[in-house]
Amino acid sequence: MKSEIIAVGSEMLTPFRQDTNSLYLTEKLNEIGVAVVFKTIVGDRKKDLVNAIRASLARIDILVIMGGLGPTEDDLTREAVGEALSLKIRREGTLVAGLATRAAQFRSPLPSNNLKQADVLDGATVLLNPNGSAPGQWLDTTFQGHRKLIMLVPGPPSECKPLFDAECLPRLSAIVPRRTIAKRTLRAAMIAESQADKLISPIYTMYTDIETTILAHAGDIQLTLLCSKASAVAAKARVDTLAGRLEGVLEDWLYSSNGESLEQIVLYLLGLRTATLAVAESCTGGMVSERLTSVAGASRSFLGGAIVYSDSLKHAFAGVSPEMIAEHGAVSAEVAKALATGIRLRTGATLGLGVTGIAGPTGGTEEKPVGLVYIAVSDAEKTESIEKNFRGDRQKIREWTTQQALDLLRRRLR
Amino acid sequence: MKSEIIAVGSEMLTPFRQDTNSLYLTEKLNEIGVAVVFKTIVGDRKKDLVNAIRASLARIDILVIMGGLGPTEDDLTREAVGEALSLKIRREGTLVAGLATRAAQFRSPLPSNNLKQADVLDGATVLLNPNGSAPGQWLDTTFQGHRKLIMLVPGPPSECKPLFDAECLPRLSAIVPRRTIAKRTLRAAMIAESQADKLISPIYTMYTDIETTILAHAGDIQLTLLCSKASAVAAKARVDTLAGRLEGVLEDWLYSSNGESLEQIVLYLLGLRTATLAVAESCTGGMVSERLTSVAGASRSFLGGAIVYSDSLKHAFAGVSPEMIAEHGAVSAEVAKALATGIRLRTGATLGLGVTGIAGPTGGTEEKPVGLVYIAVSDAEKTESIEKNFRGDRQKIREWTTQQALDLLRRRLR
Repeated sequence: MKSEIIAVGSEMLTPFRQDTNSLYLTEKLNEIGVAVVFKTIVGDRKKDLVNAIRASLARIDILVIMGGLGPTEDDLTREAVGEALSLKIRREGTLVAGLATRAAQFRSPLPSNNLKQADVLDGATVLLNPNGSAPGQWLDTTFQGHRKLIMLVPGPPSECKPLFDAECLPRLSAIVPRRTIAKRTLRAAMIAESQADKLISPIYTMYTDIETTILAHAGDIQLTLLCSKASAVAAKARVDTLAGRLEGVLEDWLYSSNGESLEQIVLYLLGLRTATLAVAESCTGGMVSERLTSVAGASRSFLGGAIVYSDSLKHAFAGVSPEMIAEHGAVSAEVAKALATGIRLRTGATLGLGVTGIAGPTGGTEEKPVGLVYIAVSDAEKTESIEKNFRGDRQKIREWTTQQALDLLRRRLR
Repeated sequence: MKSEIIAVGSEMLTPFRQDTNSLYLTEKLNEIGVAVVFKTIVGDRKKDLVNAIRASLARIDILVIMGGLGPTEDDLTREAVGEALSLKIRREGTLVAGLATRAAQFRSPLPSNNLKQADVLDGATVLLNPNGSAPGQWLDTTFQGHRKLIMLVPGPPSECKPLFDAECLPRLSAIVPRRTIAKRTLRAAMIAESQADKLISPIYTMYTDIETTILAHAGDIQLTLLCSKASAVAAKARVDTLAGRLEGVLEDWLYSSNGESLEQIVLYLLGLRTATLAVAESCTGGMVSERLTSVAGASRSFLGGAIVYSDSLKHAFAGVSPEMIAEHGAVSAEVAKALATGIRLRTGATLGLGVTGIAGPTGGTEEKPVGLVYIAVSDAEKTESIEKNFRGDRQKIREWTTQQALDLLRRRLR
């Protein structure tokens, strides 16, 4: 069965805000085998809302309408659905009482406007919303002679998601044909998107029953494989077969077979070897540390390190001599190696990472352009560095450098 | 005049990817006084596309269709617009020649499929796309007796945005009634969204000719004021008046009157006083440094610092004694102050910042729960710390702590 999500709210038609709930709802709908074939964003005008609802009901079976259920004048979803389907609206006594209780709890008055939230469409089931004052509604009805399932759910994510999970999904699952979805996420680092596509597209395009999505961001490729079958075992087997073949061609660019992030993998490998890590970051300015410490429990293997943004701190915290910087420049293989070694020795870590480069937009020269970076990894046995030329703006260069640094650590630790 | 944006592509109907171009297009359309009243996302199925295009043309005057112009079988926008408007499609000889030249430049063969990109709708003007192979198209036509302006633009952001700016906006501006939009962005830190709303909504709701948008994220409130008038001077005067009144009630929570970020403001204030800053971050793990160094030219005032994730590094890099940590705990006002003072003295910076806390999800106790953080700022005259209890997951707690740390620096530097 096909579905549409309508997100209601004028703020989502500005340049500043986007509907994001629909990504969550899409995932949940897909999991029970329901495809989302349209998404519509519409403002808080009743005429536009009625138009969007009618256009939607003419083309799909399942409609989720998100937002516009609150107490203000702008909240018009109930009225619009009533008009689109010629349904009457009644004010539900028990809901009015619930609103009064809630207002008393919060020691706030109950403005008459608030009572709108007790309005229920004829034939609708009320969906309880434990996280807010506006309940949802479920309609199993007909439009132009066809059965339609319509859900009105609140807009705030903290209300929308739990209500959808608890009230909408079980009702939908009981009606839509039973499907199970198997999912696998593979991740690869520092391979160009076009190169990855060349390797994998001849394979995944042959699996027409699996939906393969490729997301690429700053040196990270994420492949998501989704397969929907009547049997969970069959779906999983199919996804695993394709995943195995893709893993084969992605070789050692592949770092994760189950969706883990690169920082999780680096910390996992450090843990396996009971090794510790310290970093000395110049151009990335803390981004490598920030990614590592975003993982809960990072402190087991990550000691910390230094943000050696100024040359004096390269000396103070990683022992890089002013003479070396004068001779080779702060952005050089020598300094990257000295940072990696210096921070390792200063902190007593098993591994040291050194990062130096020119993030731009200024500071580049013909010899050392913006985007030139050196990354070094040091342990008791050896210290090695790589040179890279990244393109893009300051943010992009820092993101690529961070990804490359983490990947270099992964390759050293394997 | 009212507009709709249709984003074409099945990937935007998955849980993994969102249309983001439309935010840019919305901003540009608003700037010439055109409101976006619907957005539709539709997959690469011709039937669905035709449906979406017809629904759209029945309700708006200006339609921007984004994506589906490439060379693959999935690229069906041209055919769908043709079917929706009963327009014939011709293959344009000059475009075929252009595609051949482009293929030769890249030393790649020209598959016959690619020639689709030379197909032009009857009556359409070809819009040159210097950044890709698929040109855009402009149609000034009628649908059900009404004039409609229709633009077909490529989907990739690097092609869509420049083409829209260079080819669509000038054509639209020549047709739509002349309006100018004035814009101001105010930003405030560490005020609760509900508290901010209570202060500002009685004011901005009186300015019905100004669209006020509020964006809140982890201790940051961004207010955008947009006013569209026939005269640029009148629009600006109106926005400035409202901005002035809002600045008044936001008092010293307000940190920016023209959209600058908090890290930009901190660096600006450091520069004003020719002061330098060094940081010692524990629970934020580099997030404060990362935000500061995201600003180009940060090196003028920001020296760097230390990620003192382990207790041994709190000692090694900021001189915090193991005895002090044993006595007060690593998460304490004393340690935050010692970190701020220690990093300042070690680096020779004018100001030192110390951050320590429990980001969770584990590590909390009854006495020191997850979310408890201490932040200290030290200069030659005094060292002061604050205690906060932030709520949310690890990421949220780290983001709030970072914002609070930057705001504390701002308040010290004013």
